Amino acid sequence: MRKFAAEKSKNLLAHRKICAVSLQHPTASVFSSQSHHNPLPQSSILLRFLSSAASNPSAPSESMASDYSSTPIKIDSINPKVLECEYAVRGEIVNLAQKLQEDLKVNPDSHPFDEIIYCNIGNPQSLGQQPITFFREVLALCDHPAILDKGETQGIFSADSIERAFQILDQIPGRATGAYSHSQGIKGLRDTICSGIEARDGFPADPNDIFLTDGASPAVHMMMQLLIRSENDGILCPIPQYPLYSASIALHGGSLVPYYLDEATGWGLEVSDVKKQLETARSKGIDVRALVVINPGNPTGQVLAESNQQQIVDFCKNEGLVLLADEVYQENIYAPDKQFHSFKKVARSMGYGEKDISLVSFQSVSKGYYGECGKRGGYMEVTGFAPEIREQMYKLASVNLCSNISGQILASLVMSPPKVGDESYESYTAERDGILSSLARRAKTLEDALNSLEGVTCNRAEGAMYLFPRISLPNKAIEAAKFVKTAPDAFYARRLLNATGVVVVPGSGFGQVPGTWHFRCTILPQEDRISAIVSRLTDFHKAFMDEYRD
Amino acid sequence: MRKFAAEKSKNLLAHRKICAVSLQHPTASVFSSQSHHNPLPQSSILLRFLSSAASNPSAPSESMASDYSSTPIKIDSINPKVLECEYAVRGEIVNLAQKLQEDLKVNPDSHPFDEIIYCNIGNPQSLGQQPITFFREVLALCDHPAILDKGETQGIFSADSIERAFQILDQIPGRATGAYSHSQGIKGLRDTICSGIEARDGFPADPNDIFLTDGASPAVHMMMQLLIRSENDGILCPIPQYPLYSASIALHGGSLVPYYLDEATGWGLEVSDVKKQLETARSKGIDVRALVVINPGNPTGQVLAESNQQQIVDFCKNEGLVLLADEVYQENIYAPDKQFHSFKKVARSMGYGEKDISLVSFQSVSKGYYGECGKRGGYMEVTGFAPEIREQMYKLASVNLCSNISGQILASLVMSPPKVGDESYESYTAERDGILSSLARRAKTLEDALNSLEGVTCNRAEGAMYLFPRISLPNKAIEAAKFVKTAPDAFYARRLLNATGVVVVPGSGFGQVPGTWHFRCTILPQEDRISAIVSRLTDFHKAFMDEYRD
Repeated sequence: MRKFAAEKSKNLLAHRKICAVSLQHPTASVFSSQSHHNPLPQSSILLRFLSSAASNPSAPSESMASDYSSTPIKIDSINPKVLECEYAVRGEIVNLAQKLQEDLKVNPDSHPFDEIIYCNIGNPQSLGQQPITFFREVLALCDHPAILDKGETQGIFSADSIERAFQILDQIPGRATGAYSHSQGIKGLRDTICSGIEARDGFPADPNDIFLTDGASPAVHMMMQLLIRSENDGILCPIPQYPLYSASIALHGGSLVPYYLDEATGWGLEVSDVKKQLETARSKGIDVRALVVINPGNPTGQVLAESNQQQIVDFCKNEGLVLLADEVYQENIYAPDKQFHSFKKVARSMGYGEKDISLVSFQSVSKGYYGECGKRGGYMEVTGFAPEIREQMYKLASVNLCSNISGQILASLVMSPPKVGDESYESYTAERDGILSSLARRAKTLEDALNSLEGVTCNRAEGAMYLFPRISLPNKAIEAAKFVKTAPDAFYARRLLNATGVVVVPGSGFGQVPGTWHFRCTILPQEDRISAIVSRLTDFHKAFMDEYRD
Repeated sequence: MRKFAAEKSKNLLAHRKICAVSLQHPTASVFSSQSHHNPLPQSSILLRFLSSAASNPSAPSESMASDYSSTPIKIDSINPKVLECEYAVRGEIVNLAQKLQEDLKVNPDSHPFDEIIYCNIGNPQSLGQQPITFFREVLALCDHPAILDKGETQGIFSADSIERAFQILDQIPGRATGAYSHSQGIKGLRDTICSGIEARDGFPADPNDIFLTDGASPAVHMMMQLLIRSENDGILCPIPQYPLYSASIALHGGSLVPYYLDEATGWGLEVSDVKKQLETARSKGIDVRALVVINPGNPTGQVLAESNQQQIVDFCKNEGLVLLADEVYQENIYAPDKQFHSFKKVARSMGYGEKDISLVSFQSVSKGYYGECGKRGGYMEVTGFAPEIREQMYKLASVNLCSNISGQILASLVMSPPKVGDESYESYTAERDGILSSLARRAKTLEDALNSLEGVTCNRAEGAMYLFPRISLPNKAIEAAKFVKTAPDAFYARRLLNATGVVVVPGSGFGQVPGTWHFRCTILPQEDRISAIVSRLTDFHKAFMDEYRD
């Protein structure tokens, strides 16, 4: 039986008292990132990677402090919002993994495994996924247009990549791929993206609504910067959440207002629960400004049903909230009975127009089947903001001049891939479908393997790139974790890494119902590696449970 | 005779009273970006593009407000720091230029010129500068490594570009140019950059000190985010300054503490003046945390003498200030009697080691002779910060995952261009020297032309990409500007644009001694366009002075 979310979060905070050295805000449901300007990280009540309390790299040691005693900046004199921000996806566990990797380089026999497998982050190409050929052909030609006219080029590039490169160059003033663009991105590329959005949704899209960005992260930061004035401003975020949101809210000095996804119903989003959390926050004087929805979910992998999305749209409309829709996994759908619907399509289908609801959709070239994380391309589509607000967004974009042009080009390509009849069409679809079907198989294999482990339950990954299994840890393991001042799931993840070389992120980095423990594991290792991972994980888990079984 | 800087800034603020609707902080020398949380932009006392008071795009009109009345976010409910931030380089004058350009598209005879010439921003390739071939060859090959082994590739790429691409791919784990990298950037590329720094300075550089970033702007933001806790934290900035600094300080809620460059001595930096400004700020309770130095200067073009740099280093050391050295124009030196010295080299030459002084050097691929603005590559070299502070910087970098890989590769290339004996060496040096010598000629031609105009004096551009002439405007012109509620130099720039199509940025966007008027004009239009610009500018100026002469 599910508890009410408000009660859950009270429990969560109560639990956190155990882990945090000094907890300043024992409020029920609002995580303020400011902690009344208390400068030390231990006093933060933000979602954090609890294990860091044990070996916090930001805690000054005597020797360090004395070495740099004549430099002006001390740990207690930097911006406390920076101290309070946490980002578990690249937290302590990854530092340990990098250390182990260095060990293996020096001595391949130094650990009971021969390689580190990074399942901590959605970074497909780091695990061997190959880029989509057509996209890379076009990027290379736009980088070096001087070869476009050469005979040799036709021998090594597809005809449609050459044609597309010419089209794109024609859209760039002066064909200058090395010039700053319009602050929102090259207009012609935004036109292309809008055509893609229109084809996806069946509703018009306006290039003036598109802000091209270096991946989705800067777009999220820009919206937080715009919306957050002080710790009295709140942003509703799912728990578990992708820690970019908690980090960005902390850095901008706002308050994260959590709402819980229901693990028992496949990480369902219950609008009545969200409303309760909203009301609790409001009763504490928090001005809740926006609702973050991640669909498909990260780290949870659920794909929202359209009817649920309609409820969310109505809720935001009725409560005067900006809907921040993280839709970066829109191409990553594995469950045959599930389909991605953009929130804009849902809102427009309900009859809500531009002036009825404020909606931001985030998209990225890092995810999808293309997984071009290193290219740092992405965009946000911004609708339902008055022109004077849009001017402020434009100004913010201008202060950073523009996003990188290769990323801009790639963002346009993923929204307008080869079409039937294009030379690359067949190879493109083969590459795309090969990746997506393999990801679906990998998700299923890992899910089944996890569900077969003692005390582990794992919802299916309907979409996105992750599994987020729940592990019922024996009391002895929880005590052992407490003894080393580490969250139990971080303790588990660290033991897993040390035993197998497999890197996962503890659930405490994403937030979870108090007393439950999880980890996030990507489904991204190449298919021929999956069985090895399953057997390493199974052996480790069995041994761990044997060691700590009550 | 120069006045004291403190008095100057008092005058500046007094002057601003005329232009700003309600001035909150009549303090002598500190520009707070917070204005006690007064949300309306008119109350800001930050450096701003004064003309925007007349037609502020962020001022809500009746019709706009009513159209979006049912959306939740209003102009007076967004983050006031965003409202107060200004960025003149892409301000109102550029919006007007874009409008005129649209007019010309529809009707080529709609204005007394046939094209807009953007001299407002350091964006070389937008004005026809060609990229360096070798750099683009390597980027294209890294984008599409599948062609590296093809026979045709040798026909259209230089041998050393192919070799370099192989080298770079070998430095990237899994050769994955589409993967997120280490948060500070790919280690092998940081090694290459350090070799370049060592060759430049003659002192060791550590790859752990390098943070690769999407251009220099995000690096500046990261340092401001780290250093600024509240409006009581101040950053010393030159006036005139590049408005990224005032914008970033405003967005992070700090106070800009101005120090004046002396136009009469070629924009000299007098450390005794900086010290006075520091003391004035401190006497008002401002905790001054860092000194920004832009060398070569933007918008002022001066190249600091080594002895002056030594004084600055000692000043920062003695006063406990972080030295933020904007060195993005380090390759752009035109005066034969001037030479670039990095602040790190100067500090190390003086015997100051890693633990003696906190120093950050910003570098970018956008500037130099390569001018690759659209690639968004750059780095900062961070020295003299304790490990626990560095951990916080690493965390900030991690929240945004990494900078774009093409930009990272390019940042390594500009620090390690072809060497004697490489196939590309001759063509590379010809391209580089052609650009730099042409820029030097353009700077001189424009400087001479400006100095020949009535009431205009212009210091030479010893480096960087700009001229910043002073214009003595007739009282009648100043009155006319007041009448339309515009700063006199913005009035002049607008008239210049409307008459000639040449876009410059008014000096008020950078800051200037009160009662003086300037504009910033890049030296970047291609050489065959310079004489046309000179004649348009000369004709306009003559007519303007004839119209307004007292």
